[in-house]
Amino acid sequence: MGRFPNRTQDVCVVIMAGGRGTRFWPRSRASSPKQFLDIVGTDTMIRLTCDRIGVLVPPEAVYVVTNADYREKVATQLPELPAKNILTEPAVRSTAPCIGLAALHIRRDHPDAVMVVLPADHHIPDRAVFLQSLSTAIETARRTHALVTIGIEPSYPETGYGYIEVGETTGEGIHRVSGFREKPDRDTAARFVASGRHLWNTGMFIWPASIILENMARHAPEIYRGLEAFAPHIGQPDEWTQLERIYSVFPSRSIDHAVMEHARDVYVIRGRFGWSDVGSWSAVEPFWDKDENGNALRGKAISIDSRQTISASDGRLIALVGVENLIVIDTPDAVLICRKDRDQDIKKIIEALEQRGMTEYL
Amino acid sequence: MGRFPNRTQDVCVVIMAGGRGTRFWPRSRASSPKQFLDIVGTDTMIRLTCDRIGVLVPPEAVYVVTNADYREKVATQLPELPAKNILTEPAVRSTAPCIGLAALHIRRDHPDAVMVVLPADHHIPDRAVFLQSLSTAIETARRTHALVTIGIEPSYPETGYGYIEVGETTGEGIHRVSGFREKPDRDTAARFVASGRHLWNTGMFIWPASIILENMARHAPEIYRGLEAFAPHIGQPDEWTQLERIYSVFPSRSIDHAVMEHARDVYVIRGRFGWSDVGSWSAVEPFWDKDENGNALRGKAISIDSRQTISASDGRLIALVGVENLIVIDTPDAVLICRKDRDQDIKKIIEALEQRGMTEYL
Repeated sequence: MGRFPNRTQDVCVVIMAGGRGTRFWPRSRASSPKQFLDIVGTDTMIRLTCDRIGVLVPPEAVYVVTNADYREKVATQLPELPAKNILTEPAVRSTAPCIGLAALHIRRDHPDAVMVVLPADHHIPDRAVFLQSLSTAIETARRTHALVTIGIEPSYPETGYGYIEVGETTGEGIHRVSGFREKPDRDTAARFVASGRHLWNTGMFIWPASIILENMARHAPEIYRGLEAFAPHIGQPDEWTQLERIYSVFPSRSIDHAVMEHARDVYVIRGRFGWSDVGSWSAVEPFWDKDENGNALRGKAISIDSRQTISASDGRLIALVGVENLIVIDTPDAVLICRKDRDQDIKKIIEALEQRGMTEYL
Repeated sequence: MGRFPNRTQDVCVVIMAGGRGTRFWPRSRASSPKQFLDIVGTDTMIRLTCDRIGVLVPPEAVYVVTNADYREKVATQLPELPAKNILTEPAVRSTAPCIGLAALHIRRDHPDAVMVVLPADHHIPDRAVFLQSLSTAIETARRTHALVTIGIEPSYPETGYGYIEVGETTGEGIHRVSGFREKPDRDTAARFVASGRHLWNTGMFIWPASIILENMARHAPEIYRGLEAFAPHIGQPDEWTQLERIYSVFPSRSIDHAVMEHARDVYVIRGRFGWSDVGSWSAVEPFWDKDENGNALRGKAISIDSRQTISASDGRLIALVGVENLIVIDTPDAVLICRKDRDQDIKKIIEALEQRGMTEYL
């Protein structure tokens, strides 16, 4: 592990695992969202995320922030983590409160550590390159005492991602951030890709815990004040009550909107590794094995004259005849058949289920 | 029942229920072909066939010919039938041996009866009109001592049916048959429909048992000789052995090829009732209720922006998003997704299952 001399507690990793995504219905359900499923790869996404940074930090330095409903799932899937490292939020408030809560714990447990924040449900096939970028990010954060993020060199004009515009280059693959750009339209995305100056915003952050808290004090004082009021109650009998109190008044704000877009001293590491936020069924397609007709078929399937179709079986046989560009997802109580370019409308199924009171399928 | 004075044993009905069709896979299986399923209507096709003629004949006058594998299914679905009326064939030999075997039993049990032969798996929504045509056919058979069949006025140029060309009109809706025509190509079918002189061949036959046996003696002597050699063994301890013996040498021949195309004295009744042989999933579509987008959805289903799709659930939820012209059939161990105009290729799934030894799905 000589390449990663930081496998000590001067680095802590926070895995954000509170998402309640519905875009992978019917495989994902309210009780079991994407991060707890093996959508890509050979294990669940949170397990793979944890494994990916296993060479960098010991389990005692890994924190997960989730919500109370998923606490058991996290403990089961990551049994090596100390129970105290599984932090639960009393309400869904986007990433700024989540990161702030983790920063409090890390400041308390490991005051000198650099804190690495990673989403639980991203797919990163190139682990070695990812770890090199992360190592660069950690060194940069430690050296500059600034906010650091990792951006990905875009390989095509994706409109579903935010972009980071790079400024001054301060080292090999290290840039100051010139600005954050919201999800663009197609023309703008094409311009971003052509410019060579825009990277995909991955939502991965690297900073000393004290620095992000300082930045919250400056740019998101309503969240910072709540956090500091709560801090003395960590480990006390009233911890959960106090946490509920501050979350009840927290705004729902992303760390991008709350802090990153306002902070002066932000760096981005240019990541050249494969990465996807795996935002939909069609986004898994590049990572699944294909047959000679471009079908990505997981589990038992027979395909006759079918093309470019994604299917996933949970045990039953899926038989395809003459179909193209479909998504077929089979589960014990529901089966989805969706045109591939319409997978953003799976949420309409969720809405219909809610309207009809068919909550057993949610 | 005044309109059907024949509800006596001078009419017998033979239901042919030996088919091993695979075109309704995955709902139909080797152990449970179409006639034992509720593909159309509220009950199984054989049960509906039996109910349809219930006003015409008592259960003692209803015979079913099937094969040994399905004997129990017939007995369960038609519990009112005497056990001796369920005739089992030792091998699959098309309709001529099947009808010959039934004729032997009817000649023995009800020598003066007119014998009505009906497939077990046709859909006839207009029962009253059907029974009127059948009544005309029975009277014609009794009066002329000829072979009588029922043809349907074609409503469109179907290429999947055989046609009967009508000759001289001998009564209201009664014609001599001028000839039988094999399944035509599209142009020929269009010409047939335009001519007004061609009817769909339904495979329903009406004749005295003695007359069809006489015609077999003349036109299919190799089958007739076997049948007569077997006849004295009916009800004897060696009945099954003797039946196996004759079936082992019987050719596989349809009654059309073996007899109808060669017989001189054949009449056809012009049927003006709704009829379908329900040969495929797409053929059930006209008989299922549709939603406002032309979808025929049976069982639990939610459709978002989907059109002209047929789906059948066996209990699970089928969710459709943005799809068109599909067939989706859900069963406990397999789900089929097939383009509607490719349902003739479902047999390729069967072939693939056989090749891969996945016999549990057959």
